[in-house]
Amino acid sequence: MLFKSFSKGALLISRTNKFFSSLPSGHTINCTELLLKDYGTIDKALELKQSNLDQSKIGINDLLVKLICAPINPADVNIIQGKYGILPTQLPSLIGNEGLFEVVETHADNSEFKKGDWVLPIQSNWGTWRSHAIANQNLFYKIPNNLDKYACATIKVNPCTAYLMLTQFKNLKPNETIIQNGANSAVGQAVIQLGNLMNINVVNIVRKRENQQELNDYLKTLGAKYIFTEDELRKSFLTQELWKEIPRPRFALNCVGGRATTDMIRLLDKDSIMITYGGMSKQPLTLNTADFIFKNFKCFGFWLTTWKKQNPEEFKKVLDRLLDFVAKNQLKGPKCEEFSFSDYVKAFERVQTPFVNTKICFTS
Amino acid sequence: MLFKSFSKGALLISRTNKFFSSLPSGHTINCTELLLKDYGTIDKALELKQSNLDQSKIGINDLLVKLICAPINPADVNIIQGKYGILPTQLPSLIGNEGLFEVVETHADNSEFKKGDWVLPIQSNWGTWRSHAIANQNLFYKIPNNLDKYACATIKVNPCTAYLMLTQFKNLKPNETIIQNGANSAVGQAVIQLGNLMNINVVNIVRKRENQQELNDYLKTLGAKYIFTEDELRKSFLTQELWKEIPRPRFALNCVGGRATTDMIRLLDKDSIMITYGGMSKQPLTLNTADFIFKNFKCFGFWLTTWKKQNPEEFKKVLDRLLDFVAKNQLKGPKCEEFSFSDYVKAFERVQTPFVNTKICFTS
Repeated sequence: MLFKSFSKGALLISRTNKFFSSLPSGHTINCTELLLKDYGTIDKALELKQSNLDQSKIGINDLLVKLICAPINPADVNIIQGKYGILPTQLPSLIGNEGLFEVVETHADNSEFKKGDWVLPIQSNWGTWRSHAIANQNLFYKIPNNLDKYACATIKVNPCTAYLMLTQFKNLKPNETIIQNGANSAVGQAVIQLGNLMNINVVNIVRKRENQQELNDYLKTLGAKYIFTEDELRKSFLTQELWKEIPRPRFALNCVGGRATTDMIRLLDKDSIMITYGGMSKQPLTLNTADFIFKNFKCFGFWLTTWKKQNPEEFKKVLDRLLDFVAKNQLKGPKCEEFSFSDYVKAFERVQTPFVNTKICFTS
Repeated sequence: MLFKSFSKGALLISRTNKFFSSLPSGHTINCTELLLKDYGTIDKALELKQSNLDQSKIGINDLLVKLICAPINPADVNIIQGKYGILPTQLPSLIGNEGLFEVVETHADNSEFKKGDWVLPIQSNWGTWRSHAIANQNLFYKIPNNLDKYACATIKVNPCTAYLMLTQFKNLKPNETIIQNGANSAVGQAVIQLGNLMNINVVNIVRKRENQQELNDYLKTLGAKYIFTEDELRKSFLTQELWKEIPRPRFALNCVGGRATTDMIRLLDKDSIMITYGGMSKQPLTLNTADFIFKNFKCFGFWLTTWKKQNPEEFKKVLDRLLDFVAKNQLKGPKCEEFSFSDYVKAFERVQTPFVNTKICFTS
């Protein structure tokens, strides 16, 4: 699936040449871009490019922005491997779907944004893995500039996905129970916190690991009450005992697939819905025919990219709502580790190390 | 899952004793019942019982009815095996979910039904495998008595399932394409005919068999245009060529499971829905994570029993609509073979013979 939307960011930069600028010429900014030159392994797929941005080229509706922080998401890795639902129309291409930028310069006639504002590129896959950019202001959404930078830089994809999955498929009522696997993922962490705000019980499933207690303790700081490993999915506490304390779940969030997901589905009550938003195990879903017929089980997928395209204005409201939670300290961002673009190979090594529970981010 | 609804038919018979009858006493009817005495194989699970129905026991709201024809459905076989979503609360139990009866006698004060009327027991699993019954008239739905008896006797389960799957999940538009496996099943045959009435293209998948041409010819008499075997699901005509003639399907009906279903799903366009209503292969569904996320694939189940409970009045309207199609010769019943109750072992042998394409029915 190739869509044209991917290269618009780059197109809009070149379009700025059409606007004659009244800014003084001669000011140039050294810009670093991490480009995708070919699909494959990190060392061969990516390329650092240095260029000069001419401040005098800022068009009447443009902003010059500087990167604060841009995370590497699993979807970015999939794009680099050429295995995602949307891929650049041509290579080399700017990539990076998410990030927080600061306004450095605006055109003199531009009043909506001012120097020091924090902005999020609103378009999917605009290309956030660059230190600076000149681009049309319509591509950016202004947010408060006094919040946790990591929470802001990572709010557009994972917390939005969590929020929309929790609100778009079912009217979840207080004290209702949901179950999620990959509960330590960035989406999972947002689900734990949003679930608490909604007064629902969240049963969290994670892969067993050496530093299990450390992970459990961290998830508990986010408000997690029920944490189990995939291995515990067949144990009697989860198949019988827990449902004396809280209702059986009728809503499941799945980002794993394979046996762990089949085991999770067994715990669901009748009239349940499962939303699949990832497939970390790279295994398909194995689903019981009788569950669909006799238990009225329903299976949906969720992809933020599709939802955003269909609901661009609603998306901004969701961002506002989530940022409000951040401001009130009700929604924390993930733990982050910073890497410079020049260390991108190390950054991806860290991303691909099993059981690392921090978000890897680029800074300029 | 055990539900109480199953034994109501029997309860209602005994309740008739409460009503003092004004009919002349002494008229008894010899009644044969095929009872489920224990779950398991046919020879051990079922039992013939002879009893006498006393016509003087017909209560003020009762009917004495005589069986015309009662089919054996796959769900009945599953009940006998103890592997269905609803099972009798106690054994021995009357079973049989579907059948056509004729009114033999009514109480004198009863004006809604008259002798010679055709009636369908409206309740699921009322127990149709009996030659006669005295039961409350509320349990019966009167239908025209001049139609094909096999079409009427088999209309309540399979054509209703087909009609509801085609109308409850998606607004199918003329020239849209759907795909179904098990297309030679009774539901499949109804889908072919209803699909033609809706002006939609139906792609039919069947298992490969020795008398393939005979089956294809029969399905063509019902209006089937596109018939393929499961083995052909990966061939280029089905993966590419056919979609030059008709649109790719966005709606699939599945009663098979396993690889044949996975192969069928591959043919679906984005934004597709699959409804599972059976699992003839006894294999689970294996579904691709990426289809759910990037192709917005949705999976539902359908069970007529649930729908009927939630929509009892609507169900009667669906019956009327389907019987109207039968009257206009737009909906044909399946080919049927008749067996007497005393030949029930032979009847079930025939039901369980692979590739038999007729409905096996009991007559009194």
